[in-house]
Amino acid sequence: MEREHNFIPQSTPWKRRLFRIIFKADTRLGKLFDIYLLILILFSTLIVMMESVQLLDTKFHYLFLSIEVIISLFFTAEYILRIITIKNKKAYIFSFFGIIDLLAIIPFYLSLFIPITKYFLILRMLRMLRVFRILNLLDFMNDGYFIIKALKSSSRKIYIFLLFLVIFCVIVGSLMFMVEGHHPGFESIPQSIYWAVVTVTTVGYGDVAPTTPLGKLLSVLLMLAGYAIIAVPTGIVTAEMRNKRQELELICTRCGNTDIDDDARYCKTCGEKLQNH
Amino acid sequence: MEREHNFIPQSTPWKRRLFRIIFKADTRLGKLFDIYLLILILFSTLIVMMESVQLLDTKFHYLFLSIEVIISLFFTAEYILRIITIKNKKAYIFSFFGIIDLLAIIPFYLSLFIPITKYFLILRMLRMLRVFRILNLLDFMNDGYFIIKALKSSSRKIYIFLLFLVIFCVIVGSLMFMVEGHHPGFESIPQSIYWAVVTVTTVGYGDVAPTTPLGKLLSVLLMLAGYAIIAVPTGIVTAEMRNKRQELELICTRCGNTDIDDDARYCKTCGEKLQNH
Amino acid sequence: MEREHNFIPQSTPWKRRLFRIIFKADTRLGKLFDIYLLILILFSTLIVMMESVQLLDTKFHYLFLSIEVIISLFFTAEYILRIITIKNKKAYIFSFFGIIDLLAIIPFYLSLFIPITKYFLILRMLRMLRVFRILNLLDFMNDGYFIIKALKSSSRKIYIFLLFLVIFCVIVGSLMFMVEGHHPGFESIPQSIYWAVVTVTTVGYGDVAPTTPLGKLLSVLLMLAGYAIIAVPTGIVTAEMRNKRQELELICTRCGNTDIDDDARYCKTCGEKLQNH
Amino acid sequence: MEREHNFIPQSTPWKRRLFRIIFKADTRLGKLFDIYLLILILFSTLIVMMESVQLLDTKFHYLFLSIEVIISLFFTAEYILRIITIKNKKAYIFSFFGIIDLLAIIPFYLSLFIPITKYFLILRMLRMLRVFRILNLLDFMNDGYFIIKALKSSSRKIYIFLLFLVIFCVIVGSLMFMVEGHHPGFESIPQSIYWAVVTVTTVGYGDVAPTTPLGKLLSVLLMLAGYAIIAVPTGIVTAEMRNKRQELELICTRCGNTDIDDDARYCKTCGEKLQNH
Repeated sequence: MEREHNFIPQSTPWKRRLFRIIFKADTRLGKLFDIYLLILILFSTLIVMMESVQLLDTKFHYLFLSIEVIISLFFTAEYILRIITIKNKKAYIFSFFGIIDLLAIIPFYLSLFIPITKYFLILRMLRMLRVFRILNLLDFMNDGYFIIKALKSSSRKIYIFLLFLVIFCVIVGSLMFMVEGHHPGFESIPQSIYWAVVTVTTVGYGDVAPTTPLGKLLSVLLMLAGYAIIAVPTGIVTAEMRNKRQELELICTRCGNTDIDDDARYCKTCGEKLQNH
Repeated sequence: MEREHNFIPQSTPWKRRLFRIIFKADTRLGKLFDIYLLILILFSTLIVMMESVQLLDTKFHYLFLSIEVIISLFFTAEYILRIITIKNKKAYIFSFFGIIDLLAIIPFYLSLFIPITKYFLILRMLRMLRVFRILNLLDFMNDGYFIIKALKSSSRKIYIFLLFLVIFCVIVGSLMFMVEGHHPGFESIPQSIYWAVVTVTTVGYGDVAPTTPLGKLLSVLLMLAGYAIIAVPTGIVTAEMRNKRQELELICTRCGNTDIDDDARYCKTCGEKLQNH
Repeated sequence: MEREHNFIPQSTPWKRRLFRIIFKADTRLGKLFDIYLLILILFSTLIVMMESVQLLDTKFHYLFLSIEVIISLFFTAEYILRIITIKNKKAYIFSFFGIIDLLAIIPFYLSLFIPITKYFLILRMLRMLRVFRILNLLDFMNDGYFIIKALKSSSRKIYIFLLFLVIFCVIVGSLMFMVEGHHPGFESIPQSIYWAVVTVTTVGYGDVAPTTPLGKLLSVLLMLAGYAIIAVPTGIVTAEMRNKRQELELICTRCGNTDIDDDARYCKTCGEKLQNH
Repeated sequence: MEREHNFIPQSTPWKRRLFRIIFKADTRLGKLFDIYLLILILFSTLIVMMESVQLLDTKFHYLFLSIEVIISLFFTAEYILRIITIKNKKAYIFSFFGIIDLLAIIPFYLSLFIPITKYFLILRMLRMLRVFRILNLLDFMNDGYFIIKALKSSSRKIYIFLLFLVIFCVIVGSLMFMVEGHHPGFESIPQSIYWAVVTVTTVGYGDVAPTTPLGKLLSVLLMLAGYAIIAVPTGIVTAEMRNKRQELELICTRCGNTDIDDDARYCKTCGEKLQNH
């Protein structure tokens, strides 16, 4: 979710005005546009959801269909206008939000040929992220960035952890297959791995459960392991969050360092005494 | 749960005496009143619970009803007395506890017209919070405030996290609907979202579970994600609690160390004698 | 689990010898006694477990019974000897381990009159805690004390948290009763509270699950709440453990202070420079 | 997963060349060998999994069998070559990876006599750990070591915790057996202990669930306990991870502050220039 590269509006006045309305939220019209867009996105995803409900679809099929067509055409027009009004077209198209904007309309045209793809329209929800950003819900965005950053900087450790976990589940699942092999739910190793993951993550659907005493003993061991192992990702992210905590909040007036802990009295990069203490 | 605004008792002596009994717990009578009130609240919620059990209700219907009427009338009288004896009536009525006191009696009168609303009487339990406060269970209240404070100061991050989680579940649910669409439990997108939330939060009822191999693979991925994602709220709250602890802590005037225990007389990092002891 | 008060052995030589064997583990015989005791305890609990299995009980009923009688008589003899050989009899009888020792034999005699109480013999397992202590598994005991201490010092916050959680579950359960009232599993408020606890703690048996759309929506909200709320006890205990961490490891050579953080360079009580840094 | 002891290659040139290819990854051929090995391992485990699926096995039985024979023979040849080319044969054979390499081929030969042991071939997955190491995925290995180290140094506390938990579950299970004894799922104490572990770890299959009101009350208490207890392993591992992070960190020579970020040039508490930069 990198920031958009600076899109310099073109010289034509109406393009410049449209650009401000569509891309920015610093005018009354621009703000209104964003708010209506947010409502439209929510409404659109709601329609997609309701369409999937057999009962509602049979009753309101043509209503849903026409709303969908109208919204999709509107989003298409909006996407085209975004491309027209922006100067650095290529940067926009391949930016994070440019791709999201495209993904919000493609499924509609695709569904004309392959009906099932219609439900990908739900990806429109991701457009909400843009609107939040534009509406200057700054504190909320900061918290959002904070969570994403903490996850990013701990992601490699989380991947390694998940890899260990998967290897562990594969081995435990195979073991369980040998133990409970002929009982329902453990008919094959992939099935047993499915059970192992359901158990170790403490989800515990219960659609597959051990029936032999030995299988139950193994389950108990696996559950206890899962109960202890859950501490690992928690420990990783907690340690990382403690590190990331205050990064956005303080700034050194001399060197501009913003990576300042909340208990710091001197800037760690230039040694300047921090005023706000 | 802000502290009550200072309610200056009126000049009439009996009002002043009643005020001390009802609102304060610094006299023997005031304490007794609070203790009996606590018992009455607990007893009242128990009656509401038992009334909902068909078997007990058919047997003791009139007993339950009469107890309920008596307690409700008592609470009404108490509420009226509270308003009479207090000077700053408006402040009380719109305070947190004033609203709770009102909510504890409204459902009774409402249930005379709409029977089902009777069960809202369970909200009386919230009155327990007042009694705890009045009985000067100070340490307990402090711990309670500590938890609420830590949750409050991390609430915005938690909201953002839950928003991300909901968007994630909506997208995963829709994907699963396309994969398992014609199997029981995945008949519509809302249903599939329900399944996604049940899975990602590791609740795992098992009333909806995937049946196709591809669906099971997706489930496994979602479970592993949920197992890792649970680290996020934990990390947020833990960091916030650590912070809240630090706010109450001290600082060394020589080296600026803030990691000082309550019983420390010398700074542990530079050996300086601490002034504030 | 306080340490036993110093039991001065009586002057009779055989009593003194027996005392060392039974209560201490610093002689070869004393150590052997403790090891055999540990094995006997484990064996005894295993027998109780197997007795409860219908299939095994019908086959080996008399074998189990005779083993149980022998072990119970041995434990009784041991308990009597403990009382005889120790000087401060009263302190032993009412100490933590004295009560455990008694609880290990009472159910046997009680079961002669009320058969079901036989299964309380499982409480014998708690005797294992004594043997661990006596066998000088010091590091393990320290870790055990560490966990208990951290839990103890955060217990008040945990209680408050659980109280909040119970009030929350009662209110949510009542709400759900009004929404799903006539569906199986939600027949009464206590039943619905049971469901609320099963859901919020992410256990999710699935024996009770919502069936109406509104009920499912409420469930989803409750699950998300539970997923976030689990961060609270974790945060409390983590903060407490960080505090308790190194208490047993360092000591100030001047004032004997043992409450020294691992990053301390000076003693916080007397300001002495710590040697081990 | 200790590092392999230094294996000095023998003087014969072809042995030296083979040694570099098989054991090291610093030549183009050595790297290729490792990559193909990784693919072969993954492919081999996939075959074992698919063999366990009845439907696939009946169709492709002979294909699976021949692939398995070829891969197993290749792994055997590789294992023999490893022993031949290495000088310190004994150290290799009894090293962590030496045992893994052996475990990857034994089940094949064993399955000629006892067919079910074939599925132990899944242990081949563990060989992936070696390949990761050799391919110099250094950052990933470091993170892996970090997780393993943090788990190792907190393992004793985790064991103690699990021991407490098991004793707790045995006692709660026995209690529940007395309460729900004649209801399905609670027929014996071991069964009830299985239920207790399923509940306290928040797995909650639902294959065993209480039916009596008293049983449900006990369950609710157990769930709340489990919800709070999960904080213990999390707290242990988080504290340990924080510690492991600190070990790699720096110290200010003036004020003794140890909370120094990797990119700090000045101490954040006293403003001192840090020497080690």
